[in-house]
This record gives sequence, C-alpha cells and structure tokens, in this order.
Amino acid sequence: MRIRLGLVGFGVIGEGVVALLEHHAEILRLRSGVELVLERIADIDTERIRRVTVDRAKLTRDYREILTDPAIDIVVELVGGITVARDVVRGALEQGKHVVTANKALLYHHKDELFALATARQRELRFEASVAGGIPIVKVLTESLAGDRVRAMYGIVNGTTNFILTRMIEEHWSFADALARAQALGFAEADPSLDVNGGDATHKLDILATVAFNARVDRERIFTLGIDDLSLTDVLFAKELGYVVKLLAVAKQADHHMMLRVGPTLIPERCSLASVKNEFNAVMLQSDFLGDSLHVGRGAGARPTATAVVSDLSELAISIAGKREFNPHRYAPFNEFATSSHLDAESRFYLRLGTIERPGILAEITTILGHHGISISAIIQKETPSDTPDQTIPIVILTRRAREGAIRDAAAKIDQLAVTRQQTVILPVEDLEL
Amino acid sequence: MRIRLGLVGFGVIGEGVVALLEHHAEILRLRSGVELVLERIADIDTERIRRVTVDRAKLTRDYREILTDPAIDIVVELVGGITVARDVVRGALEQGKHVVTANKALLYHHKDELFALATARQRELRFEASVAGGIPIVKVLTESLAGDRVRAMYGIVNGTTNFILTRMIEEHWSFADALARAQALGFAEADPSLDVNGGDATHKLDILATVAFNARVDRERIFTLGIDDLSLTDVLFAKELGYVVKLLAVAKQADHHMMLRVGPTLIPERCSLASVKNEFNAVMLQSDFLGDSLHVGRGAGARPTATAVVSDLSELAISIAGKREFNPHRYAPFNEFATSSHLDAESRFYLRLGTIERPGILAEITTILGHHGISISAIIQKETPSDTPDQTIPIVILTRRAREGAIRDAAAKIDQLAVTRQQTVILPVEDLEL
Repeated sequence: MRIRLGLVGFGVIGEGVVALLEHHAEILRLRSGVELVLERIADIDTERIRRVTVDRAKLTRDYREILTDPAIDIVVELVGGITVARDVVRGALEQGKHVVTANKALLYHHKDELFALATARQRELRFEASVAGGIPIVKVLTESLAGDRVRAMYGIVNGTTNFILTRMIEEHWSFADALARAQALGFAEADPSLDVNGGDATHKLDILATVAFNARVDRERIFTLGIDDLSLTDVLFAKELGYVVKLLAVAKQADHHMMLRVGPTLIPERCSLASVKNEFNAVMLQSDFLGDSLHVGRGAGARPTATAVVSDLSELAISIAGKREFNPHRYAPFNEFATSSHLDAESRFYLRLGTIERPGILAEITTILGHHGISISAIIQKETPSDTPDQTIPIVILTRRAREGAIRDAAAKIDQLAVTRQQTVILPVEDLEL
Repeated sequence: MRIRLGLVGFGVIGEGVVALLEHHAEILRLRSGVELVLERIADIDTERIRRVTVDRAKLTRDYREILTDPAIDIVVELVGGITVARDVVRGALEQGKHVVTANKALLYHHKDELFALATARQRELRFEASVAGGIPIVKVLTESLAGDRVRAMYGIVNGTTNFILTRMIEEHWSFADALARAQALGFAEADPSLDVNGGDATHKLDILATVAFNARVDRERIFTLGIDDLSLTDVLFAKELGYVVKLLAVAKQADHHMMLRVGPTLIPERCSLASVKNEFNAVMLQSDFLGDSLHVGRGAGARPTATAVVSDLSELAISIAGKREFNPHRYAPFNEFATSSHLDAESRFYLRLGTIERPGILAEITTILGHHGISISAIIQKETPSDTPDQTIPIVILTRRAREGAIRDAAAKIDQLAVTRQQTVILPVEDLEL
C-alpha cells in the first residue's frame, strides 16, 4: 500500500526528511508493509540548490496545492514560525489530512486549538520531532508509560546551551567565549537569544509537561532563567562541591499541582544526566512504577530530527493502512492540575554571596538564613590576602531543602546588608540519583 | 470499550502487573479510551497469600480455561521457563488471542516458531518486558527508529552483574564479596550462574539484535564471557587508564554481517554508559541518521517490568478497539545477514600479562605483538621490589585497533614464553563517545 505525503517547508530539516525517505525507503517498506511516497513539496524558494535532488515537478510555491490535493494522506509541516505554519496545520486537518510537525513554537502557542481541531476532524497531529529532536520522548510518555504516572521530569532540551555549559565546565571558558565557539561550529544561531535566555527550553518544557501530566499548563507561571548571566565562578564552585551546572527544564507534579521551571541547576556530577555533554539532549523521568529512567540523543540537526518525523510518518502510515479508527484520547488533557509558582516549590539551593570581609558577617548571614528556616549543608569561603580588606569575597552556601520563596526572601535581606557588594546568586540543586 | 485479559503465571511480575492495572486503571482508561479488564488468572498455586488482592473466583489452576475462554482478547504469559510457557503462547495464538510476554528465554529458544505462528494467525506477540525491563527498547527499535538503520548496539542488560561491577569499581570489592552483597540485597538469585556467566545477557542480546537488524541470529556464534572470572586487578587497572569495566552485550552489523558478543568490556569513564550504575540497565544505539542514542532504566523488578507489560497491553487494546488490521511486517526478519565470529571483529583491546622480571621481556612481548600487526597505545608496568626476582608482575597493554583473532594468536604465543606465569587476560575496549 502507498501512503502519500505532502511536505511544506523545504529547509534543512525538510532536506533531512527527504534524504531519509530516499535512503531508507526499502527498510521502511519492509518494516511497515507500507510505501511512503513523497508526492509534493511546497516552499517559497523552489530554485535554491539543495543537498538532496527531487523531481522539480513535485515542487510548488503554493502550499495550498498540497492541502487541497485529495491524493495526499499526510502533511508534514516544517515551515517553522507560528503564522504560516498555523495555517498549514489548520488547513491540512480541515482537509481531513493527518499532520506531522517539528514545530515547537507552534505547539507552545497554539496546541489547545490544534489538538481540538484534530480531535474534531478525527485526524492525528503528531509532533515527536518538536521536542528533543531524535529522542522519542513523546512516544515514551504517551505509549511506554501509558500505564504509569510521571511525577517529575528533568530535561536537557537545548543543545546550544548544553554545548556552551560543557565548554565552561571542562575548559573553564567564559559564557561569551563558549558562545562564540558554539556559533563557529554551527551549534548556535547568529542570534542565539532564544536558546541562551531559556525561551526555547520553556517551549519544550510546556509541551513535555502537557503530554506527561495530561494537563493544561499555565504558561505564564513557568519560571524561566537563561544562562546568559551565568558566571564561570558559579560553574567552578559547583564543580568544587561535586556538582555540574546544566540548563534544566524541570516539571514536577503532586497533589493536583504542577511546577515548571527552566534555569541553570546543579546536579551531582556522578549522575547520568551530568554525563550528557556538548550538543546532546536528554530527558530523565521519575514515574510511580518504573522509577527513574533516562533518554539521551541528539536534539537538533537535520538527520536526527528527520528520524523523529519519519517515525511519526511510519506509525501514521501503518494506522492508515490498517484502517485503524481514530483514537481521540491520545493527548487529551484530562487532568485539571493547577500550575503553581516555583516560589512554593522546595529543593536544595546553591547561594553565592559577594561581601567584603568584616568580623561577624557570617554570623549575620547565617542568622538571616536561620530566621527563614534555612539549614546549611555546606559552605565555602576561600582565604584572601589580609591586605585587601575591601575586596569583594565570595561565600558559597549549599542549603538543605527549603521553599524557594524563603530562599529569595533571605537573599533579599542579605543583599541589603551594608557589607554586601553583589546580588546573591541563587541556583536550585536537584539531587538526582540515576 | 472493554478489553479482557487473561494472566497466566501469578508470581512477582504477575503481582506487579495486577497492582499496576489496579492502581492506574483510571489513567489507562483516560489515555486510551479503553478499559483493561483482568478476567482470569491461572497459576499452579491459587492459595498463596499475595501482595495484591484479587477476587478468588478469577483464579484457576488450569491455564487452558483462559486459552479457551472466548471472552478473553489478550493473554499475558508470565510463567517463565520454556516448556509450559511455550504451550501457553502457542495455545493462545492458536485460539486467536494476542499475547504479551516477559519471557526472554522463551523468545531466545522459540521466537522463530512463535513469530511464524503469530503471523499465520494474524495475532500480535509483544515482548517489550522481555529485554531490559522497563526500558522501552523494543518500541524504540521497531517504531522510533522505523526509518533508521542501526549499526551497533551496546547494552548493559543484566542488573545483577552491573550491581556487582559497580561494587568492584567503587568499593574495590572482589567478585565474590560483591556477589554476596547483591544476594543479600535481592539483586542476585540464590543460584546466580545464568547472570554472572553472561547467559542471561546473551538471551537478551539475541532478541535485541533480531529486532534491531531484522535478521535471524545464529545463536551458536554469539561469543559469551561472564564476569565470574573477572579479577579486581583488571577492574582497577582499567580505572587507572580512565576506563570502566561493564558486562556489555554488543552487536554490530556491516556488509550483511553481524557480530554479537557478551563479555566484560572497557568503556571510557567519561561516557554516559559508564555512569549507569548498580542495578540499572541501559542500551546505547548507533544508527545512520540519529547517531548515538541511549536509554536507561530499571531492567528487572515487579514494578518496572509491569510498566513494559502494560505498555504492550495498552497498545494492543487501542489497536483492537480501533479495529486495526494485523500488520504482518512488525518483526519480519527480512535481512539475510550472516553471523560472523567475534575473532574477525576489530576493536581495541586491554591485555594483562603475568610474567617474571627478566631483561628483554618487554622486547620479546612487543615483538610478538608487532609480528601480529598490533600497535600499542598505552602500557603500564609498576615498579616491584628488586629483591623478589621471581614474583609474577602484571604488564598491562592497551592496543590500537586490531582483529581479535590476531590478538588471541599473539596472546597464545606470549602465554608460551618461559617467563609467562599466567594466562594473558584479554578484554575488548569500546571507545564510546556519548
């Protein structure tokens, strides 16, 4: 049986999908019993020389030709952005076609509308490639853990920042130097702001939490901090304490509440997530029956992303060929979980204070922490030459578990002390075991 | 819609499945739209007090009652072993029921027959739980990588031996002490031979390679070495060289040939697989488009295994409810790959020689290696007191890439030298990057 595809958006990822369909056509056919036929490709640029060759007759500048072509069963949306892409996905579903997309921004902004439309039209909207590229995390959450309940999720879902952090940790480069290197190697865009400010990871976390918890996330309550202000000092202090700083996307649920945050986070250097380096992505899950599990792979790039797109295509094709009826429950957000503030969440914290050296300072600081119910687990203050009394010296504190709100209140008080010269750095610590 | 299950084998895993179906019935129903109803349970012991309570009327000592019950859609085989289990799976398929099994030994010995029967009867035989417990590796290989081609696979697929090795590496315990500890903690059976001699890992590797390469494995040609003869000395030398010793199940394919081996293997301590400790399992894949990917989780235990069984059940139930036609291609071994000997495979190797100290020995040894085309990448010979000339001293050599046959030939020559006091230890080295 032949299943016909229309591809909208023929950029780098599109080229990867075309290459994969071409190179592995035989494997796909033998594994699924279905032949995936790329019928038409729409792109605003039909002239550019590409890394794959396709019959020019298949190209069109007008994606509507694909949406209205009755021969096409599945539309692959690889336009990117949230305007044209939205029209493509809406239009395809309305025309009764299944859709596969790699577009995380589109899902972040419009998934409620698009899932509702898919359900109404009894068509599937698949998006494995939208989060963590080639890591099959959507499939793991929706199928492998179908009978389990996810309690927490820890993701390294942005390869650019993971590359930068790896350079900072291993080579002791500054953020700026590591970013320049990432750009030179093609791991960072010319404008890397959405990566380094945590925005991209936030988009992905929203999608992952929606799928993992079967609940609608209040996106306004996701706390986001990037690595653009992360100092090498903190990366090195963390290392000294036996921790690694990663840009983690964290989601936890308990008692009908979810907490979502993105930001630089300390994790033990011995844990498996800490060993995920350079441009690799990873998602660690904690669920009731399975316990800890971890999935690691490349999160971006034409070829890894293409494997996820083609996995969705293959599953859809088998369903169509097997005449499987539409299952409207696939991504139903049936849980009414409130999204709570990160300030109400408890964890351990890393604090770095910048003060001048004066008698009684440590007593003052620890008194403030004590008043806020915060216990200290470790402390580092390095010796400095006694002839520079007004030099700002760092005091690093690892706390026991505490509410983040209490930590921030205490830090605000410390920041007001006359001896304090720098705003206190606050980073959460996650004591992962796997 | 209700899908009715019959469970055959009510041991520890069976209890886990019953507990999961009970605790998460609502989640399963909301996610799939299907209600999984446990209709009957067969076990030779219907009297034993169990960790879960079930209606006694559901219990029977005769599994045939389940096979012949027309109300039952899916049979879950958790008997273990390869005699009764085979009858159960055959009988269920012949009666037109789908089957879910967690039985690796059964698949190792009878999968050709059972897959053929399933195909003939147009019923599915699912076995996610049979390999690496809660890690969804069968799903990843068959669905997520549907369009990709796996080149190599590196698995930590036996939790008992991984626990023992972790204790040897981290606490410097001997194999015997670590085994006793594993038994005390319930991570090793009273008779651990099938775990420590590599047999269990070989069963799983055979299943994984069959699925990954879509090819029939010649099981006689899988090279298997356990950790029962592994010396702490080698674990510690490996550590000194920056490597960790893991019991790896390795499968590689190229040019229509597969090579499969199980044995203690050195991997870089920096790689993610090296960070997989204690009773955890992991499978690392190298595929054409995705590149390196890794999946980590618990490989045994009632609750992790139950998640895999219920994942299979849920997928089957959705298929039945959606009236999907049978797809006969799912596990078709369409590739005619020959299984080649490990002796023809190339890799780097760790060698430990035991000789007495005499002038010219190192020259003799390196001449033998040179004659076999083997280059040396690193060497360790520790200083020993000069007053013990006849003491056996270890010489550790890391080679460059070489054919294993050449390595073994060279080692046999070295073992015949007059100064050699111990058989040379030979362990492969896999330079994993992820």
